[in-house]
Amino acid sequence: MRIHGRHYRTIFPAEDGAGVSIIDQTKLPFAFEIARLSTVEEAATAIRDMQVRGAPLIGATAAYGIALAMDADASDEALAQAVRVLGATRPTAVNLHWALSRVENRLAPLSGRERVRAAWTEAEAICDEDVEQNHAIGANGARLLAEIHAKTGRTVNVLTHCNAGWLATVDWGTALSPIYQAHDAGIPVHVYVDETRPRNQGAALTAYELGAHGVPHTVVVDNAGGHLMQHGKVDICFVGSDRTTASGDVCNKIGTYLKALAARDNDVPFYVTLPVTTIDWSLDDGLAEIPIEERSAREVTNLVGIDEDGAVHDVRVVAPGSPAANPAFDVTPARLVAGLVTERGICPASREGIAGLYPDYTRSAAE
Amino acid sequence: MRIHGRHYRTIFPAEDGAGVSIIDQTKLPFAFEIARLSTVEEAATAIRDMQVRGAPLIGATAAYGIALAMDADASDEALAQAVRVLGATRPTAVNLHWALSRVENRLAPLSGRERVRAAWTEAEAICDEDVEQNHAIGANGARLLAEIHAKTGRTVNVLTHCNAGWLATVDWGTALSPIYQAHDAGIPVHVYVDETRPRNQGAALTAYELGAHGVPHTVVVDNAGGHLMQHGKVDICFVGSDRTTASGDVCNKIGTYLKALAARDNDVPFYVTLPVTTIDWSLDDGLAEIPIEERSAREVTNLVGIDEDGAVHDVRVVAPGSPAANPAFDVTPARLVAGLVTERGICPASREGIAGLYPDYTRSAAE
Repeated sequence: MRIHGRHYRTIFPAEDGAGVSIIDQTKLPFAFEIARLSTVEEAATAIRDMQVRGAPLIGATAAYGIALAMDADASDEALAQAVRVLGATRPTAVNLHWALSRVENRLAPLSGRERVRAAWTEAEAICDEDVEQNHAIGANGARLLAEIHAKTGRTVNVLTHCNAGWLATVDWGTALSPIYQAHDAGIPVHVYVDETRPRNQGAALTAYELGAHGVPHTVVVDNAGGHLMQHGKVDICFVGSDRTTASGDVCNKIGTYLKALAARDNDVPFYVTLPVTTIDWSLDDGLAEIPIEERSAREVTNLVGIDEDGAVHDVRVVAPGSPAANPAFDVTPARLVAGLVTERGICPASREGIAGLYPDYTRSAAE
Repeated sequence: MRIHGRHYRTIFPAEDGAGVSIIDQTKLPFAFEIARLSTVEEAATAIRDMQVRGAPLIGATAAYGIALAMDADASDEALAQAVRVLGATRPTAVNLHWALSRVENRLAPLSGRERVRAAWTEAEAICDEDVEQNHAIGANGARLLAEIHAKTGRTVNVLTHCNAGWLATVDWGTALSPIYQAHDAGIPVHVYVDETRPRNQGAALTAYELGAHGVPHTVVVDNAGGHLMQHGKVDICFVGSDRTTASGDVCNKIGTYLKALAARDNDVPFYVTLPVTTIDWSLDDGLAEIPIEERSAREVTNLVGIDEDGAVHDVRVVAPGSPAANPAFDVTPARLVAGLVTERGICPASREGIAGLYPDYTRSAAE
């Protein structure tokens, strides 16, 4: 994606060949800084401290972490140790363990010298596949934006929630990928960006991404989306998914469900963008079966911002002594979803719709 | 209402008889301070700078402002000048002008000496009537909480949005009045308090009120309400109303509509509490007819909090350069409202329901 006119991925081998470069996301949106990872320990720290975030990007960083470890010591012990160190950074991240297993399985049978080269190649392959998948999601979703524009002849207004952009992946993102592709193809697009309390990923990251790429956008509080839809200011919604049931229920950032309700009440199509990897073939009823992570109350009571002098402050906004609860996700029932936009195409949010796009997966899940 | 075990109103004649005391709401929730208003100019400043806020309280403060002016000079010129100065503080506040007209009409025919006494009496009457009205709303609403408790035998969970508590009125509030009365009557009540971005009146003021009075409560981000209702954690919703159509549509703080949608989707009764003064008998279609105030983007991009050392900071949370929009209210259609809780009782949110409670008003509106 473009920043200051230059194309970036969120992670890439350093230009001088020594180590891996990442965009340090803890500095965003107030500073754009490239950080260098030179050791597996630095890769682990980057994941743990959320310098990189988003499931696909965490997986890619872990893969590069193994490559950095092999550069220093390509022994069996060093490989096992690297997998252990990286695997302990964010224990619940599914993509992290998937990427580590993939690289470990690829390297295990190889000799030391072969391992180094194979580790770098595998990490790069993981990144390239993520980029390709997200590009395909975007191409499929962009057709929806083109159709709306062809019908109305005016700017297409999209509402999105949280950050499902390229900062959460290696490039393109999921929910924002259709927007970037439509914008680059000359379709006039404007995005309403939900602030996305409590962690403000919309106000901080999505707004940053869109601004850096030059996509017109407006930040709104999470409360505003219903009002915008009531007044015809939203043509379509695109959100991501953290976990999708085989029946099309979508678990995504808290507040997604409220926007889906407003979309239905105002006949605004509500699309969920996702790669096949977020589909959990074992799940049927999202509301009953998906446990919702309860995160620290401090994310609600306090937040971080920058003052006029550029100093960063962590401030409390809730009345002293009042407790807070912080459920991190909610489940949007399939009945509220207009369609799922995947790398293979768009399908209804239903068991039949998903099976139609993924007969190979559903067949093996049934076995 | 109780703070540190003592009963307060938000405005009251100072104990030493010199001037008027207010709770300085610009200091909340981080400090509880009583400020003294000694002149009409100080009363005007208190309204303009939002040391007092909420329509009923603004009206009461204006009435006391006239009394302070009469103390200094009870001439016709001084009366006219006081009405001018106070009326210019918040030009769009309906209650402000209603209170000023009421006091002016009461004082105009009186002699100077009589005016001073009548001004104080009239201001006190305005306050007492507000308290009585809100108490009646609360008594009617508390019956709903008692019914739920009688049925379930457990703590009644209420969700509320914004601040429609005693800080917005002289005492009791509207949406919080049923909660205080049920709590005081021994019915176990717990309140989910919507943070209410962008101005955080829930996290700051509602949480403060409930905490000071000892009502169990939990602050949540505005995104969380739907999830809570999906999981049976909310028994009933109470919100206030800034303006109500004769057909039962409700204009209230932005985000109210989203909670009403979630309530309907989960069979949670959604009640709106209001005094008759918020009903606009001339309006039929809230969505089409009520203009929505668009406030400063800075309320979205920046917010104020307190750091660990007790220092207050105004910080930006939105990506630099990204624009923001800030619609302040939305309209909840009557079809989503379980009932209107007024000082006269509870009625369906419909033209017939409202006319049934207010035949005297609807008759005169039709004439």
